[in-house]
Amino acid sequence: MSLTVIGHMNPDTDSIVSAIAVADLLSKRGMAAQPAAQGKPTPETEFVLKKFGLSAPAVTDDVAGKKLWLVDYSDIAQAPKGLAEAEILGIVDHHKLGDVTTPNPLEVWTWPVGCTGSVIKAMYDFYGVEMPKGIAGGLLCAILSDTVMFKSPTCTDLDKKAVDALAKIAGVSDVMALGMEMFKVKSAVEGASMKDLVFRDYKDFDMGGKKVGIGQLEVVDLSILNPVKDGLYAEITKVKSEGRHSVFLLLTDIMKEGSEMLIVSDDPAVVEKAFGVKAEGRSVWLDGVMSRKKQVVPNFEKAFK
Amino acid sequence: MSLTVIGHMNPDTDSIVSAIAVADLLSKRGMAAQPAAQGKPTPETEFVLKKFGLSAPAVTDDVAGKKLWLVDYSDIAQAPKGLAEAEILGIVDHHKLGDVTTPNPLEVWTWPVGCTGSVIKAMYDFYGVEMPKGIAGGLLCAILSDTVMFKSPTCTDLDKKAVDALAKIAGVSDVMALGMEMFKVKSAVEGASMKDLVFRDYKDFDMGGKKVGIGQLEVVDLSILNPVKDGLYAEITKVKSEGRHSVFLLLTDIMKEGSEMLIVSDDPAVVEKAFGVKAEGRSVWLDGVMSRKKQVVPNFEKAFK
Repeated sequence: MSLTVIGHMNPDTDSIVSAIAVADLLSKRGMAAQPAAQGKPTPETEFVLKKFGLSAPAVTDDVAGKKLWLVDYSDIAQAPKGLAEAEILGIVDHHKLGDVTTPNPLEVWTWPVGCTGSVIKAMYDFYGVEMPKGIAGGLLCAILSDTVMFKSPTCTDLDKKAVDALAKIAGVSDVMALGMEMFKVKSAVEGASMKDLVFRDYKDFDMGGKKVGIGQLEVVDLSILNPVKDGLYAEITKVKSEGRHSVFLLLTDIMKEGSEMLIVSDDPAVVEKAFGVKAEGRSVWLDGVMSRKKQVVPNFEKAFK
Repeated sequence: MSLTVIGHMNPDTDSIVSAIAVADLLSKRGMAAQPAAQGKPTPETEFVLKKFGLSAPAVTDDVAGKKLWLVDYSDIAQAPKGLAEAEILGIVDHHKLGDVTTPNPLEVWTWPVGCTGSVIKAMYDFYGVEMPKGIAGGLLCAILSDTVMFKSPTCTDLDKKAVDALAKIAGVSDVMALGMEMFKVKSAVEGASMKDLVFRDYKDFDMGGKKVGIGQLEVVDLSILNPVKDGLYAEITKVKSEGRHSVFLLLTDIMKEGSEMLIVSDDPAVVEKAFGVKAEGRSVWLDGVMSRKKQVVPNFEKAFK
């Protein structure tokens, strides 16, 4: 049976392009594989796929009975339906180790770097497989996106080296110009529903037994979001009412390098406990906070304990 | 703070030598690290350490407050006390993915191969670090032990290639002769207490909410164990009475390539459910079964579901 390579819920560029790349690498290692995704590409990802001539993976929402590789997560909460009836043969990731377990040995490549794309570049090198130009361009954009053009505290030297190497393969001469072009696409809010915006980059976590949702919108200037802030707040209030303890939405200004966090919670004091700053009304400004994974999730996990 | 590299409970040769090797590799990557073990070396491991001039790692039974790399496991049940108060920065393994989780990103190298030593050989190559001769000899023996000199179904081409490369570094000309010498040491039961023998290579598992212990003794000829079989049965009966649902002890004949399994269980029918053969009295012969990890644990996990 052919392998299915699938990223997390509400797929971002890393999740989509990594699935495409790992399926390519596995195929070239002699294992038939195809990429899948738990949803359609965001406008940012669409821009990347089009730019580098890649096709969006088929949308799959039930993986029962399949043989899987997971990319960009190892948490059951971020997995598709049917995971318990699937066989996990591999994981490529750059996040904390989640609660996925397996009955059989598997191949895991997880590194504490800024992007799964950087791990995948090392895997191609390790297996001596030549990377197609389009996949190199896609992974390059995934790294620029995940590391907010190297500004995120999650960014490591390995990510920067991977970008240099990928740019050469993809034939990209001005990496930062490509990054700005991509982030302008990402910043656009016209035509998107509030639901689309909240779930553009959204994850549910189990924190001390409580279901906590954390979304993030990254823009080149926070003022872009002024017209939609009330709508976003109403939307996360609705999302919270669907059985969650809290929903937080990070509005990240990649130029000012910080995030305004919108807060809906049964216990809003958890925010001060986590970050040492008091929320004013429905939101709080978190200076220097750009990474959900490195600066937000660990603080909340401690605060919810 | 210096990193502590620590293997699983009831450490085998792989667990001990892998801790020594990963601590060496991390140190050479610029991170101060030292090996530790959850117990003293077995006679087999003592033979290996002495043969290649390695020192037994310090015995550590509480890791609270430490920064850790885990080698050869990712199950909480096999971890030392204080794991919840420690920080896990890396895992190197060749087993199923266990229930260890982390709040932060980490480095994981897990491959579906016969021995953690084979993964570590690839890590030295990947990081371009020269492996000391003694460590190469130790890892070589770990692979011979875990793969029962390439006879175990867990053995892969990568293990064989690693052995070839390690033998060159260690200056070992006759790998199979070294293996036989080691397995003769492992087969010896003189002077060991029944408790020592049962726990020489023993692991507890959580199977469908039940605590299940599985031990394994590998000998070059099963008749070596005739004088101690009654004593071993009495000992696992005692171990079971300490809050376990079942205890199984595999007596593996590496020449006949099969195992006699001693059985103490609240539900002995689980053995037939798992292996399709009926136990006769207190034991059953499992032809071709040599690997706890690949041939025993997955079958029991299904049967206990």
